[in-house]
Amino acid sequence: MIGYKTTFMKSILCYLLLTVSITSFSQKKLDQLAEGNAIRHVLAQQVSDWNSFNIEGFMQGYWKSDSLMFIGSKITHGWDSTLARYKRSYPNQEAMGKLRFEIIRLLFTSSDACLVTGKYFLQRKADNPSGIFTLLFRKKNGKWVVAYDHTS
Amino acid sequence: MIGYKTTFMKSILCYLLLTVSITSFSQKKLDQLAEGNAIRHVLAQQVSDWNSFNIEGFMQGYWKSDSLMFIGSKITHGWDSTLARYKRSYPNQEAMGKLRFEIIRLLFTSSDACLVTGKYFLQRKADNPSGIFTLLFRKKNGKWVVAYDHTS
Repeated sequence: MIGYKTTFMKSILCYLLLTVSITSFSQKKLDQLAEGNAIRHVLAQQVSDWNSFNIEGFMQGYWKSDSLMFIGSKITHGWDSTLARYKRSYPNQEAMGKLRFEIIRLLFTSSDACLVTGKYFLQRKADNPSGIFTLLFRKKNGKWVVAYDHTS
Repeated sequence: MIGYKTTFMKSILCYLLLTVSITSFSQKKLDQLAEGNAIRHVLAQQVSDWNSFNIEGFMQGYWKSDSLMFIGSKITHGWDSTLARYKRSYPNQEAMGKLRFEIIRLLFTSSDACLVTGKYFLQRKADNPSGIFTLLFRKKNGKWVVAYDHTS
């Protein structure tokens, strides 16, 4: 009888552990889904601001920090320099054109860090430039912001 | 006397908490230093293998997984396709040339993830191409490997 009881207790324990594991795994997936949606929302807002020719609004998607890094043809350090670079590269509405993002992958490396891969497409009168971007999103003060941008 | 004792105990407690905090902070910094050195070692080995015209050796620095992503002019998915791409782009010793890396920043986003920014320089008979890379290193089975590479 003791043997039977022990086996029964073990089964119960296994079942409980499995339930806790599955619940914890599902919870993590659900959390990432919600955080992923928050990140997608920041990107959608950036596209909307860009297409309203509002570079300052667009720049709110970036981390307002000297540690921000933007990599285009060269490396730009800090939020202020990144804003200046955008203003230099896109001086008017014709240069800004119409922006579209295609998000390819979100990869969470921790609860406050997510690597986002995507493509951008600019529709302009003169040309239609496009490229690939790698963004590192960080959660700062409860808000997801781009802390690193490598676009090529 | 009781008031004096309480103040004294509070001071001791504060001192202990501060010591624990500093020790924990220092330990984290020391861990990151050691992990950073391990990552630099992987990159140095890649350079060494490349300069011995050993692409298979160079590829050991990458995560042997279908989830590996390599972004050059387009997106390549998986270790096998990345190897094939390298072999296609660098078919012989003349095309491979002599490689040098310049590491700009290591940014840990968790204990098993580190974003590495750097520059590459190729010295060849015909030309000297160079560019910027963003690598996501992940610790897989106790070994740091490149799980994501965006080079432009």
